[in-house]
Amino acid sequence: MDTHTFLLHLLIILITSRVMAEIAVRFQVPAVIGELMAGVILGPSLLGWIEPSTTIQLLAEVGIILLLFKVGIETDIRRLIDAGRQSLIVALGGFLMPLISGFVLGYWVFGFTALVSMFIGGALTATSIGITIRVLGDLNRQHELEGQIVLGAAVIDDVMGVILLAVLYEFSVSGGVSVINVSRVLTFILLFFLLAPIAAKFISLLIRRIDNYSDIPGLIPITIISLVLLFAWLAHVVGAPELLGGFAAGLALSRRFFLPFGVALHTDRRFAGRIEMQMNPIVYIFSPIFFVTVGLSLNMREIDWSSPFIWVFALSFFVVSVMAKFAGAMLIKAGIRQRIAIGLAMVPRGEVGLIFAELGRSTGIFNMEVYAGMVIVIALTTLLSPFALKWFYAHVGSDVDSPDARYISDSQAIR
Amino acid sequence: MDTHTFLLHLLIILITSRVMAEIAVRFQVPAVIGELMAGVILGPSLLGWIEPSTTIQLLAEVGIILLLFKVGIETDIRRLIDAGRQSLIVALGGFLMPLISGFVLGYWVFGFTALVSMFIGGALTATSIGITIRVLGDLNRQHELEGQIVLGAAVIDDVMGVILLAVLYEFSVSGGVSVINVSRVLTFILLFFLLAPIAAKFISLLIRRIDNYSDIPGLIPITIISLVLLFAWLAHVVGAPELLGGFAAGLALSRRFFLPFGVALHTDRRFAGRIEMQMNPIVYIFSPIFFVTVGLSLNMREIDWSSPFIWVFALSFFVVSVMAKFAGAMLIKAGIRQRIAIGLAMVPRGEVGLIFAELGRSTGIFNMEVYAGMVIVIALTTLLSPFALKWFYAHVGSDVDSPDARYISDSQAIR
Repeated sequence: MDTHTFLLHLLIILITSRVMAEIAVRFQVPAVIGELMAGVILGPSLLGWIEPSTTIQLLAEVGIILLLFKVGIETDIRRLIDAGRQSLIVALGGFLMPLISGFVLGYWVFGFTALVSMFIGGALTATSIGITIRVLGDLNRQHELEGQIVLGAAVIDDVMGVILLAVLYEFSVSGGVSVINVSRVLTFILLFFLLAPIAAKFISLLIRRIDNYSDIPGLIPITIISLVLLFAWLAHVVGAPELLGGFAAGLALSRRFFLPFGVALHTDRRFAGRIEMQMNPIVYIFSPIFFVTVGLSLNMREIDWSSPFIWVFALSFFVVSVMAKFAGAMLIKAGIRQRIAIGLAMVPRGEVGLIFAELGRSTGIFNMEVYAGMVIVIALTTLLSPFALKWFYAHVGSDVDSPDARYISDSQAIR
Repeated sequence: MDTHTFLLHLLIILITSRVMAEIAVRFQVPAVIGELMAGVILGPSLLGWIEPSTTIQLLAEVGIILLLFKVGIETDIRRLIDAGRQSLIVALGGFLMPLISGFVLGYWVFGFTALVSMFIGGALTATSIGITIRVLGDLNRQHELEGQIVLGAAVIDDVMGVILLAVLYEFSVSGGVSVINVSRVLTFILLFFLLAPIAAKFISLLIRRIDNYSDIPGLIPITIISLVLLFAWLAHVVGAPELLGGFAAGLALSRRFFLPFGVALHTDRRFAGRIEMQMNPIVYIFSPIFFVTVGLSLNMREIDWSSPFIWVFALSFFVVSVMAKFAGAMLIKAGIRQRIAIGLAMVPRGEVGLIFAELGRSTGIFNMEVYAGMVIVIALTTLLSPFALKWFYAHVGSDVDSPDARYISDSQAIR
């Protein structure tokens, strides 16, 4: 794609997503749905104007990384730790339940092979942390206990997803699971998770130190964008496709750096406030690109809508995928309404589910019908859950505390 | 260039320019010199790690456009109008003097052909508004009368440069000047200059109106980045290479939109303050890319340093190029120290001079020796003028008012 086309595509994405988000809000619909719909409209599903090219996808990844960084900056580590044990339960439940029930439904009811059923189960384990967090943010709920539990759960859950993806991919390519390869993946991920918080802490101290000395403005945005570039580049270099499902998984890991990095920077409220004020405008430019790209990836035209199999498949797995995430949320000790809110927030599969489905198709494990059915399931979970969550908070969720006023005034101040 | 390399190059540019700028400031050297030197070090002159690819150059153009927008936002239209008549004199003087003296020196003293001499004169007319504004900004002088005069002069001067470039290019390609083609260029530029301020006013009103209604954050950065993308795309589409010296000239015009656009947004101080606060972090990321790219384009290796001709050529034209810009500044009515400051500020030829020189080489009008000599002249004007200006203000410029405290506190507040 030449520069000329790229500029035009980026322009169309920014303007359409903004217009659609404004329209969505007018109709009491979460803004993120407007941005997802912008992608569906512009993409192969409807107009076919824009395909998610490598460059657009890269910008989208920068968008989700920066959004997670922003969430991290706004997150108090103590709250996250308070929610920690419950996050772990929700994550484990929300990972195992969909995996097992997806496998059972696929293998015993639909009669697929074990590999296909495992891949279906795997795709259903995903949680699109981006969409979840964005909806909770749009509803001013991200700083509530349920927001913290979901945040923690989505992070843990995603890691298990990456490991499962690596194992399944290994299996689908070589026909068996090599202990050496799998342990290499595990070692890599483990190392990353041990080193990332240390690096995050170290860099956050370094930035504050240099910031005190420097006379030239712009240190904060330049450092953070440089780190994003560094991780994107590392994901390209290290993210060996034969091991980790490639670039996507590499970047999934880099997301895991920016959330704790943000949390590490949160320790000093004033400094965190300055970072937020400077980074927010950049986040606002990049994050819609991510949500549009998710919409672009949902190709509704590939689906044969007249096939009864697809409808039966999609509806069965949709019900299972919702029930299974709910079951995970039901395991914790909390008010029933809070547990329902958490269950709803864990439902969207978004781009992570799509990566699984795409891998299933590209390796030939999913035929077109199964792939199309999975796309419908992922689309339904992604598009319906924000509505459900909004409706739930408006009509039922009244026993949950009102949003924390301090955080609202912060995020409004820089608008 | 693949994504992988691009990410790495961008990372290296951001980090090196920052480190060099910090070092420069420690040694009492203007920060912009550090960024220019980063380009010289990374580029073909020294390490040869990074070549100014199309994408990097595009980001650089976005950087200079955003920097001019920032300058516009900070500029009071009344001050600019107050300085208007003097700006016009400085611009006309600073355009005609180098053109005539460059031609005379080339044609009569060095014995070049009329076309070569015209091209040399043309290259000497350029003023690198970016470097000038940045140095005045680094020295906190951009809001003084001389800053406003230089700003106005550089804008007018650049337009004359684009027209001259178009005419010379036309001449060099077709061997004559077609009245039809030249009037097409003039009409296009005239139309642009009539419509740009109207569009700027209209869009600025629109943004303020939508901003009052919108509940979703990020309107300001998204609108402004969308406009930058729109103009960059238009420059690609409309900037017919055979007429306007291509993309570069097209973008040179779009710069002319963003300065008045910023000025139009300045009318309401509070709103302007909010825009500045949100756009500054983005400006700080992109603008160093511009200055690094200027450094990257100065290929010192192409110069045969042992050739006596090049030294004679470079020194003669350097003296003439400095004297001629000074002569322009001397024509206005102001204190002698203010006139010297204006003269110094008009000296850097920067990227605009390089575009002329490059065009001279690519059309075969300049041989390698003349081209190399011109690169030295441009490099000297670009690299020495910031030092001279800083030294002048520190040691001589004491009759010029102290910087306006209100503006300083504004620009420091968002650091």
